Amino acid sequence: MWNRNVETFLGCDKEYSEADLVLFGAPFDSTTSFRPGTRFASKTMRGDSFGLETYSPYQNKDLEEDSAVFDSGDLELCFGDTSRALSQIEEHTEKILADGKRPLMIGGEHLVTLGAVRAAVKKYPDLHVIHFDAHADLRDDYLGATLSHATVLHRVWDLVGDGRIFQFGIRSGDKSEFDWGREHVSTCKFDFSGLAETVDQLADKPVYFTLDLDVLDPSVFPGTGTPEAGGVSFLQLLDAIQTVGRLQNLVGCDVNELSPVYDQSGVSTAVACKVLRELVLAISR
Amino acid sequence: MWNRNVETFLGCDKEYSEADLVLFGAPFDSTTSFRPGTRFASKTMRGDSFGLETYSPYQNKDLEEDSAVFDSGDLELCFGDTSRALSQIEEHTEKILADGKRPLMIGGEHLVTLGAVRAAVKKYPDLHVIHFDAHADLRDDYLGATLSHATVLHRVWDLVGDGRIFQFGIRSGDKSEFDWGREHVSTCKFDFSGLAETVDQLADKPVYFTLDLDVLDPSVFPGTGTPEAGGVSFLQLLDAIQTVGRLQNLVGCDVNELSPVYDQSGVSTAVACKVLRELVLAISR
Amino acid sequence: MWNRNVETFLGCDKEYSEADLVLFGAPFDSTTSFRPGTRFASKTMRGDSFGLETYSPYQNKDLEEDSAVFDSGDLELCFGDTSRALSQIEEHTEKILADGKRPLMIGGEHLVTLGAVRAAVKKYPDLHVIHFDAHADLRDDYLGATLSHATVLHRVWDLVGDGRIFQFGIRSGDKSEFDWGREHVSTCKFDFSGLAETVDQLADKPVYFTLDLDVLDPSVFPGTGTPEAGGVSFLQLLDAIQTVGRLQNLVGCDVNELSPVYDQSGVSTAVACKVLRELVLAISR
Amino acid sequence: MWNRNVETFLGCDKEYSEADLVLFGAPFDSTTSFRPGTRFASKTMRGDSFGLETYSPYQNKDLEEDSAVFDSGDLELCFGDTSRALSQIEEHTEKILADGKRPLMIGGEHLVTLGAVRAAVKKYPDLHVIHFDAHADLRDDYLGATLSHATVLHRVWDLVGDGRIFQFGIRSGDKSEFDWGREHVSTCKFDFSGLAETVDQLADKPVYFTLDLDVLDPSVFPGTGTPEAGGVSFLQLLDAIQTVGRLQNLVGCDVNELSPVYDQSGVSTAVACKVLRELVLAISR
Amino acid sequence: MWNRNVETFLGCDKEYSEADLVLFGAPFDSTTSFRPGTRFASKTMRGDSFGLETYSPYQNKDLEEDSAVFDSGDLELCFGDTSRALSQIEEHTEKILADGKRPLMIGGEHLVTLGAVRAAVKKYPDLHVIHFDAHADLRDDYLGATLSHATVLHRVWDLVGDGRIFQFGIRSGDKSEFDWGREHVSTCKFDFSGLAETVDQLADKPVYFTLDLDVLDPSVFPGTGTPEAGGVSFLQLLDAIQTVGRLQNLVGCDVNELSPVYDQSGVSTAVACKVLRELVLAISR
Amino acid sequence: MWNRNVETFLGCDKEYSEADLVLFGAPFDSTTSFRPGTRFASKTMRGDSFGLETYSPYQNKDLEEDSAVFDSGDLELCFGDTSRALSQIEEHTEKILADGKRPLMIGGEHLVTLGAVRAAVKKYPDLHVIHFDAHADLRDDYLGATLSHATVLHRVWDLVGDGRIFQFGIRSGDKSEFDWGREHVSTCKFDFSGLAETVDQLADKPVYFTLDLDVLDPSVFPGTGTPEAGGVSFLQLLDAIQTVGRLQNLVGCDVNELSPVYDQSGVSTAVACKVLRELVLAISR
Repeated sequence: MWNRNVETFLGCDKEYSEADLVLFGAPFDSTTSFRPGTRFASKTMRGDSFGLETYSPYQNKDLEEDSAVFDSGDLELCFGDTSRALSQIEEHTEKILADGKRPLMIGGEHLVTLGAVRAAVKKYPDLHVIHFDAHADLRDDYLGATLSHATVLHRVWDLVGDGRIFQFGIRSGDKSEFDWGREHVSTCKFDFSGLAETVDQLADKPVYFTLDLDVLDPSVFPGTGTPEAGGVSFLQLLDAIQTVGRLQNLVGCDVNELSPVYDQSGVSTAVACKVLRELVLAISR
Repeated sequence: MWNRNVETFLGCDKEYSEADLVLFGAPFDSTTSFRPGTRFASKTMRGDSFGLETYSPYQNKDLEEDSAVFDSGDLELCFGDTSRALSQIEEHTEKILADGKRPLMIGGEHLVTLGAVRAAVKKYPDLHVIHFDAHADLRDDYLGATLSHATVLHRVWDLVGDGRIFQFGIRSGDKSEFDWGREHVSTCKFDFSGLAETVDQLADKPVYFTLDLDVLDPSVFPGTGTPEAGGVSFLQLLDAIQTVGRLQNLVGCDVNELSPVYDQSGVSTAVACKVLRELVLAISR
Repeated sequence: MWNRNVETFLGCDKEYSEADLVLFGAPFDSTTSFRPGTRFASKTMRGDSFGLETYSPYQNKDLEEDSAVFDSGDLELCFGDTSRALSQIEEHTEKILADGKRPLMIGGEHLVTLGAVRAAVKKYPDLHVIHFDAHADLRDDYLGATLSHATVLHRVWDLVGDGRIFQFGIRSGDKSEFDWGREHVSTCKFDFSGLAETVDQLADKPVYFTLDLDVLDPSVFPGTGTPEAGGVSFLQLLDAIQTVGRLQNLVGCDVNELSPVYDQSGVSTAVACKVLRELVLAISR
Repeated sequence: MWNRNVETFLGCDKEYSEADLVLFGAPFDSTTSFRPGTRFASKTMRGDSFGLETYSPYQNKDLEEDSAVFDSGDLELCFGDTSRALSQIEEHTEKILADGKRPLMIGGEHLVTLGAVRAAVKKYPDLHVIHFDAHADLRDDYLGATLSHATVLHRVWDLVGDGRIFQFGIRSGDKSEFDWGREHVSTCKFDFSGLAETVDQLADKPVYFTLDLDVLDPSVFPGTGTPEAGGVSFLQLLDAIQTVGRLQNLVGCDVNELSPVYDQSGVSTAVACKVLRELVLAISR
Repeated sequence: MWNRNVETFLGCDKEYSEADLVLFGAPFDSTTSFRPGTRFASKTMRGDSFGLETYSPYQNKDLEEDSAVFDSGDLELCFGDTSRALSQIEEHTEKILADGKRPLMIGGEHLVTLGAVRAAVKKYPDLHVIHFDAHADLRDDYLGATLSHATVLHRVWDLVGDGRIFQFGIRSGDKSEFDWGREHVSTCKFDFSGLAETVDQLADKPVYFTLDLDVLDPSVFPGTGTPEAGGVSFLQLLDAIQTVGRLQNLVGCDVNELSPVYDQSGVSTAVACKVLRELVLAISR
Repeated sequence: MWNRNVETFLGCDKEYSEADLVLFGAPFDSTTSFRPGTRFASKTMRGDSFGLETYSPYQNKDLEEDSAVFDSGDLELCFGDTSRALSQIEEHTEKILADGKRPLMIGGEHLVTLGAVRAAVKKYPDLHVIHFDAHADLRDDYLGATLSHATVLHRVWDLVGDGRIFQFGIRSGDKSEFDWGREHVSTCKFDFSGLAETVDQLADKPVYFTLDLDVLDPSVFPGTGTPEAGGVSFLQLLDAIQTVGRLQNLVGCDVNELSPVYDQSGVSTAVACKVLRELVLAISR
């Protein structure tokens, strides 16, 4: 009774030493161009996760028994100084990787992925990236900024190079993004066609998985900065996550772009929590 | 003009004497563990039902002509004293059944079903129960309480016994619920597979039908305390309700777990009203 | 820098002289019987359209390059004097048609369509109408009013006569509307079955296309006055719009019934913007 | 138990025959130029009045014992046909007055007052009007319409003439309204200065009292179409209402311009309910 | 970095052993009769407290330096079984008092006070109670329940007896409450008149202080279940809290009835946090 | 009719050449540490300003006749790159000043003031600053950033030096800010005491006026990122603005920190619009 109040994501209460996955929040949204608010995702998810069960009837697994996650809380990031915030994320991820554990980051806007990938690519020079999203995020700069939620996958490409990025669910971008993308990355528009083949092909490669939740249709996930009609259903995403879970060398992942304030029903947060539970169970060994 | 202001659910304005179905609200949510608010469902549904038509193009029937429903308003239940509230519901239901009419209760949280089933099982000792829900609700106790929204179907089982409860759409619960359930009830996970067969099998049995609206996907029904992604669509539910309507001895039913405050668009209430209209038309003779 | 602040819908910034389509808002909702608010649709759509891209990956076209739309802003309509407001719309539409351009009106409640059709039928006496909606809108009068959102297609029929109106997606109405409709209009209930055939049949006729956005399922479009569960998906609508785009003589169109205040997530507005983009691209030549 | 569900404003449940005051709703807002929604005021107030007590510690009176109010429900008004709606209100008010009772109308937008005043001035040709409001409402026409929420006091002046209208709390209008007003009505800007003197002066005259709730500061009453900072406090209004209650020949009154949808906290509705309770107690004999 | 995520109220991060005050949440609202939701107060306050400063310019003190508060988190209370929940609160409070520390409880509905007072009166049989509230809470039973938010001060009176309860700010209740109160408790209606004298008179007595935040005017504190217009301002409350801080033997206190969901602006939570900061600083030694 | 849609703040529609004041929006909130959203202030104010009158009964002046404001729209600022955004603001302000006009900027977070002051101090090396705010904003750095909403007045002090900054209404800050402030700036805590004297003293000096709207009490202005109870009333602010209007050499001003999304009633935006109208009228000559 007399310990200070501890708050973790549901069922993610292992000690650091025994953990396989290290969950942390990266509450940053300074480059968001339309509607900010993803900075509140991780805190809100921790609070609302208690409306969820630890058990998944989809995978017949339980967070308590079938996963080992340590929740280190949220990074205290510098708003308005994007480079500095990315360095903080990179440094935190690096420590997790150095201890032989895997990072599980909750954004924040999608740019936070860059910090984590910088750390991952240092350890795994042969890194590949699987990317679920509504938006291509392949611009080279956006309103003059090269570090932006709209450029993040281009920046990741700067690190990993051609043929290493595999996008799914993309249904928005400007024309030049799609044109550039055809030369440098693999883009599956609208859905998850070919994901199983991609996973088979990357079976023994080090893979980082980044999940922008706006890949979901806004009907079930309205709480995001830039909703895009025509997305995938929760069950399609669930299936795709289980496919990703077949990878043998998934070295880190993130879930981003929940913006709780735009969905006062709480459904978007509940969906994000359920996605996180299923992701953890799918990738735990 | 000079009658006091009467408010009924749309098209449910028959006199008691001529009614087949007696609609009433059971505004109770004291055991709700996550987000309360279902107490406002019945009042909000009455008010918003005037955005609906009495005619169903799905069933080609009309509430005015093809049903006979008396709306007795809401029970005035005691908050915080669960046993007392359940007794009030039981007593009200008993009177309806004693008059040869059928109860149509609007919850409230799912626990209100227990009050109605207690009355029904007294009149129909051979009672069977069809249960649509996202949650199994089969715990034996919850945070120390045996009377809880999370235990209600276990309490119903105490009354009807093995093999009498048929669950559909279930996609959440702890592991022990599913394990216990396999021994004592019939549970169809995720959807309505096997419903037609169940209805055929129960054709001449007395059946109580309890519909937790969170069986619907939160995309179309966000206004509920514990939204669970991955639910059925409105059209799937509509089809299932028509299947239930084929039962020859449906002795009572309820519709519960709408929590209007969590959906300020009004869509959840509109959906609940439409479900109620279709249910009434499906079960009226 | 020193021009007064101009606001147009995204990518709709051509000069009048070079425009094919003339976009304008008709912010009127005085006859709305349930929940008003559509008057704010056009302004909100202009503001939020900047969260959208000008490029459509569905049609591989771009608003900047593949369309020519002039945005003339909103009409200043008289609230509470329905006849006067309709005359203002009719007059504005007439001028657009007289200049050999096509009107693209953003409602407002559905009654605004009547003003535009009055102008169109004067120029094209052989006018046909394609109508997407959840509601039949075929009443002859509503609460004593003959000019109402609930009577608008009956009023249009007064102008064009039997066999000229083709409805799709209809899932709500009173019985008499459906009965009357069978004699005078073509009504496809629930979905877009037969749309391709209709479009083929009307290939060389002058056609006005009116799109009530509540034809969409409320899961993806909750922000409307009278949400009706059981609607079409965004992708179904997108497909239907492209089918309509095959018409060779589409003389005008409108998009109506967005009520932004009922969807604080902004998703409904985002969907309306995306529908408008796709519509413009589908009908531009 | 077996009466149909009756809903009245809290403590307003007398029979018509025994009533002094006849409460009714006039759910009309078709001429509202900025943000509609007052049509929902009366229904929402009835529902939420149960969060209030019948007893006033301010006046040491109780609605049950110290007033006699019959609640006749809401008129079913025609949206979009302003003349017709006003006639319906006039006719209803006329019947109440003919039976020797006093009308207590809940708007709706402020224009509904015109219907009631038309009836009152027929019975009391010497009618005077006390008017609390943030807005002068003295325009002669508004966007071309002479029947408008913005012209209502000018239309009332057409009926009662110079020197019969006494305005308080006014803090918004165009310049011409204030100029015209100086010639024809008595206007107290910003607060209730001089109200006691006015009441003394009108002690034996027939007086109609119209209370636009936006006279309150938006801090305590945000739920209105056109909030105007700088208004009176609840306690100032309470005091003013008790002053009005000293009139010996108050022949009717109304409370209008609550728009519940704009205040999701429910505070505005709670304030409106409390104002109504205090008004009833202040004017009951 | 590698400790599990700890969440405390801003600046309340002392160890238990060094603490003077022990903060805990009592998330219970099962007897709330109108609008539930206070169960979320403590969690929401912890999260939003980081928008506050630890320093008070009003008292020129700082939470870090001038107070010693340990935050033990929230009790896990049983919903729907009121007696059991109260026992849990009583037991927790008893342990705090037994260790020579003072409880600082965040409700929940006002009934939670009864649990804490039961513990306090065991240790301090001569306990007095200072009570700030909009509502008298003096009913003997409410809808048949003796344990209710509406009866809590009557239940406290059962324990402490006549002349020990001092109420301030009361502006709502039924007539019988005020009548009963005149015999048994001291009630200051509407404001804090006489508070300084009461504090002087109780200078050396053991006093429990219970603060129902709805004593504040709903303009500044809309986020509560039953808002009552006509309340005190924040600055008046601040002044009164500093007066209470002059007591030499304040043995415990609570702050209750924040219901965050009813104020989506976050202002009510921000106000509650600021009140808590000022209260802690006023009573710390 | 055939001009592209122009949107200006109400009554601010002069041509640039004839303008005294040049209004522009600076939609930037990247350094906001708690709740972002001020980027939407200027657009929302333009849209909602049409609920306001151009005439002020407080000052008996009218925007159409008694002011000359050109609205140049919003700057397109770079999110996430704070230095760059400030340079854009500085450059824009410089041009306005170079043309002998005065800038009137709508934020955005308070940091935008730095851009405008940089331009102003170049033209007026003897610049003084009057600052209304709830927060001192005097930190030297915040979470490692020197360019932050929490440091903006410190950064302004870097430019203007000791004795040139006059703060009013301050009620929040950390202790070090108040300590540092005592040496370098003039701070009036809580209200506007001494403002008239300050204005007299600065009568002939060049003065920049920066108004953080959160100086208002959150009861009337909840729509801001960090609401602080205990603020000034609208009428107090109105009076203070008129006092500031007596300055003979006011060279520029800004109004900032409205965050519309946090106040869905629209009251905060309406208040901001009214404040802007009164400010323009007070400082126009």
